[in-house]
Amino acid sequence: MANPTAAMLVIGDEILSGRTRDSNLHYLAGELTRSGIDLREARVVADDHAAIVAAVRALSAAHDHVFTSGGIGPTHDDITADAVAEAMGAPISHRADAMALLQAHYDRQGMPFNEARQRMARIPEGARLIDNPISVAPGFSIGNVHVMAGVPKIFEAMLAGVLPTLTGGAPLLSQTLRVLRGEGEIAADFAALAAEYPDLSMGSYPFSLNGAFGTNLVIRGSDPARLDAAMVRLTGLFG
Amino acid sequence: MANPTAAMLVIGDEILSGRTRDSNLHYLAGELTRSGIDLREARVVADDHAAIVAAVRALSAAHDHVFTSGGIGPTHDDITADAVAEAMGAPISHRADAMALLQAHYDRQGMPFNEARQRMARIPEGARLIDNPISVAPGFSIGNVHVMAGVPKIFEAMLAGVLPTLTGGAPLLSQTLRVLRGEGEIAADFAALAAEYPDLSMGSYPFSLNGAFGTNLVIRGSDPARLDAAMVRLTGLFG
Repeated sequence: MANPTAAMLVIGDEILSGRTRDSNLHYLAGELTRSGIDLREARVVADDHAAIVAAVRALSAAHDHVFTSGGIGPTHDDITADAVAEAMGAPISHRADAMALLQAHYDRQGMPFNEARQRMARIPEGARLIDNPISVAPGFSIGNVHVMAGVPKIFEAMLAGVLPTLTGGAPLLSQTLRVLRGEGEIAADFAALAAEYPDLSMGSYPFSLNGAFGTNLVIRGSDPARLDAAMVRLTGLFG
Repeated sequence: MANPTAAMLVIGDEILSGRTRDSNLHYLAGELTRSGIDLREARVVADDHAAIVAAVRALSAAHDHVFTSGGIGPTHDDITADAVAEAMGAPISHRADAMALLQAHYDRQGMPFNEARQRMARIPEGARLIDNPISVAPGFSIGNVHVMAGVPKIFEAMLAGVLPTLTGGAPLLSQTLRVLRGEGEIAADFAALAAEYPDLSMGSYPFSLNGAFGTNLVIRGSDPARLDAAMVRLTGLFG
């Protein structure tokens, strides 16, 4: 059976202005690969209501899962929850369970649970809360969309709570052969081998390191025996 | 006059599998911000013909410029040129100008200009070549789509050739105030200030460093006087 598919949506002006370098996509990609969920595409959009709504709708319709990062804090530029609610056709309000979590947190800290902080309890109707073990304000899952924070440590902690609840497939495995030849030299034989193994994906990635040029040849697939067989052939060709 | 808009399309299985961490988006974002071109969205797709064609069409129709990275090498998984040609409705072939560049390069190196390397001369009809000062194989611009390599050093060198040919607007400027308070504490006053300056964009980004929590308050805009005025107000509120 084919693995479930996924998309990521990164939300935030700071990524598109070059102020912040996103690291959540790379982290999610590695975690999904281990879980046997195929990450098929990613998008980055600004803190723009219409752009978020359109992207969530398109990705939610096209994939089994959508993971979002960013825009769920207490300030005026945090508009993800409302946009996701609209995209999924759900009403949104300050939900009692999220209000209680946050109220208890700010009480413990001796800090006022003011209107801005209460924004973080805006959760669409029917959503399941995603635990935030770092700063309490929860993420949420609604339909096939999992809404998480942009701060990498919190994103990673939330993802650790979500992933075990999803049904993955066979993990995507990969093996790499590093050769000190240019891509153009190995391309023909490599393409012929790839054509013999249509169930595997083969890619080549050139590198230069201390003046040496070479290519990493990567084979990906979920059947370890097929991967081993192709790797033996690859090593015979170029090893 | 509003600044021109742009989108980026990152192409490659290796990004979505978590093997490679993309750095071209962050680099492009910084360069476009300096050039006064508004990067509005980015997408990452796999080495998949249909996915590339669909993304190029959507982004090319929605923005003034599209910048792509990845998939223009000599191996079977390098399919960007053909996909972009289809998306833009242009025929594609081994073009004489690109063949001549590459032939001369491999002659100089004493390396065979084989069929795989000749793939890198596949350029859509009507496209303008983008100079590659590092490894010769050119990128190209067709319509509003600028097709560049995925290897960061080559991407950056190609971009340096393309950007001066584009008409930018006023550079997007930003100023940051770092405060040792949580987002929830400053949110109400910050939102009120943002509402007073609808021509500027204001964002808040929490950080924790050595156990201290704080927030970077960022104001972005292209009018330096307005930016300064807002910054004086911001510093009065929180400085």
